[in-house]
Amino acid sequence: MSAIGISGLAHLFGIISIILLLVWLVHYREGIDYDSDDGFRVFNVHPLMMFLGFIFLVGEAIMAFQTVPGERPKGKFVHMTLHLIAIVLGIVGLCAVFKFHNMGNIADVYSLHSWIGISTFCLFGLQWLIGLITFMFPGAQAQTRARMLPWHRASGRVLLFMAICAAETGLMEKAGFIGLKAHHRETKLVNFTGLSILLFGVFVEMSVGVR
Amino acid sequence: MSAIGISGLAHLFGIISIILLLVWLVHYREGIDYDSDDGFRVFNVHPLMMFLGFIFLVGEAIMAFQTVPGERPKGKFVHMTLHLIAIVLGIVGLCAVFKFHNMGNIADVYSLHSWIGISTFCLFGLQWLIGLITFMFPGAQAQTRARMLPWHRASGRVLLFMAICAAETGLMEKAGFIGLKAHHRETKLVNFTGLSILLFGVFVEMSVGVR
Ligand code: HEM
Ligand code: HEM
Ligand code: HEM
Ligand code: HEM
Repeated sequence: MSAIGISGLAHLFGIISIILLLVWLVHYREGIDYDSDDGFRVFNVHPLMMFLGFIFLVGEAIMAFQTVPGERPKGKFVHMTLHLIAIVLGIVGLCAVFKFHNMGNIADVYSLHSWIGISTFCLFGLQWLIGLITFMFPGAQAQTRARMLPWHRASGRVLLFMAICAAETGLMEKAGFIGLKAHHRETKLVNFTGLSILLFGVFVEMSVGVR
Repeated sequence: MSAIGISGLAHLFGIISIILLLVWLVHYREGIDYDSDDGFRVFNVHPLMMFLGFIFLVGEAIMAFQTVPGERPKGKFVHMTLHLIAIVLGIVGLCAVFKFHNMGNIADVYSLHSWIGISTFCLFGLQWLIGLITFMFPGAQAQTRARMLPWHRASGRVLLFMAICAAETGLMEKAGFIGLKAHHRETKLVNFTGLSILLFGVFVEMSVGVR
């Protein structure tokens, strides 16, 4: 199978993950509404935005050099723009969880999940800025770009991997809070969502790795 | 910084993780003893063995081609042997958690953590077998080896990443079971352990990625 076939599998599991996440949040949980008086509806914005922004769009951005047809500058533009949208959705998702914590007077940033999440978010912003300066500013020398590229690639792949760790730990934390029991239907749904998110990450990394 | 400098950071965080994990399991928790009548002492064998085998040794094995001085066949032998020890320690760690579940009549393999863990373990065994056949059997053609290598590399890196997701979700699950509270000392210790394990993975992936 070729790198482009693998990226097809990545798209597939990306879409499956979105569907499973929506079924979970809307059908099993309270629904999704940033402006609600029900804290749980506000919270549910968080997992959706974090997955859509920080995992799905980031993964698609990483694969853009393979999947976007046409000249390389076009791929580069798509790559940069998808990452920018990812940051915006990520900010909305983080605002949602902080709003939820304020509404319920819950302590902030104490769990392993939140530590992993915050670190990922900060490093991601840094990667974006360094990427912009290195690969977009006309002043940068071709030599500098070539020297930075392997570092940009390696840290970009690591950032996707960190975001997936954040999502898996987030799912575990929520599963604990709502007391999911062994072999119930919702438990299985959450587990399949987690596996599907993991497989999305695996296939993005493979499609970039085997090139 | 060079690839070899990054692998130094990986060693460092690997050792910090072992220390933090031992402090947690021995000082804050019940201690570690496979033959104990106290189920929790039996359980504690699980996180230690999974980290030592499936994360620390696997990471060291992946870096062995850079870090082991001398001829390439020597690196290859170290790589294969470390992975074999990893599988053995992994089996001990899995036996420990199943023994704990039997002692307490707890349901098996229902959580997201256990699903990620089981998948990682099975795919790891497969990777080892395929690695053995491709790179060790004298019958394999040089051409076959060259064709398989990018796949072996990419899936090996993904497997380390899956093992780290397993460890982070495992820490979250245990933190939920024992009801760790915000801003307590043990909570912070567990979070630092999780971050240190994550950083080990990050630096292993970087040191392989920037070469
Ligand atoms: C399906 C995915 C996710 C779920 C189910 C989830 C779940 C949760 C839960 C239950 C909390 C509240 C508890 C706490 O403070 O620790 C939380 C907080 C947090 N999450 Fe997520 N999360 C997900 C994805 C992510 C991702 C991808 C990121 C970052 C890249 C992230 C970053 C954070 C941060 C920084 C907090 C702390 C905010 C605070 O303490 O007020 N989450 N998440
Ligand atoms: C302004 C922001 C950014 C710019 C201008 C930029 C630019 C680039 C360029 C020029 C490449 C080289 C593609 C090639 O020649 O194959 C690249 C690759 C890559 N970037 Fe970015 N990047 C940016 C942000 C990011 C961010 C935030 C991430 C983090 C997740 C990231 C992850 C990657 C990865 C993983 C690759 C390797 C893709 C491959 O090998 O196919 N980039 N980027
Ligand atoms: C520090 C690391 C780890 C901690 C704290 C931890 C914690 C736990 C806990 C609390 C359970 C019991 C609950 C359940 O059935 O889901 C468990 C089970 C399990 N763990 Fe881990 N784990 C860690 C690392 C790993 C790793 C690295 C793997 C695999 C590569 C793994 C594989 C499994 C499996 C397969 C089970 C299910 C066994 C059963 O259901 O009887 N764990 N772990
Ligand atoms: C019998 C078992 C195995 C054999 C004989 C074997 C053999 C090899 C060989 C010959 C290389 C090429 C090194 C080079 O030329 O740079 C390699 C690289 C690699 N192997 Fe394995 N391997 C085995 C098991 C595994 C397993 C179980 C993993 C899973 C985690 C793994 C992960 C990797 C990685 C990530 C690389 C790339 C290292 C780098 O690029 O520096 N291997 N292996």
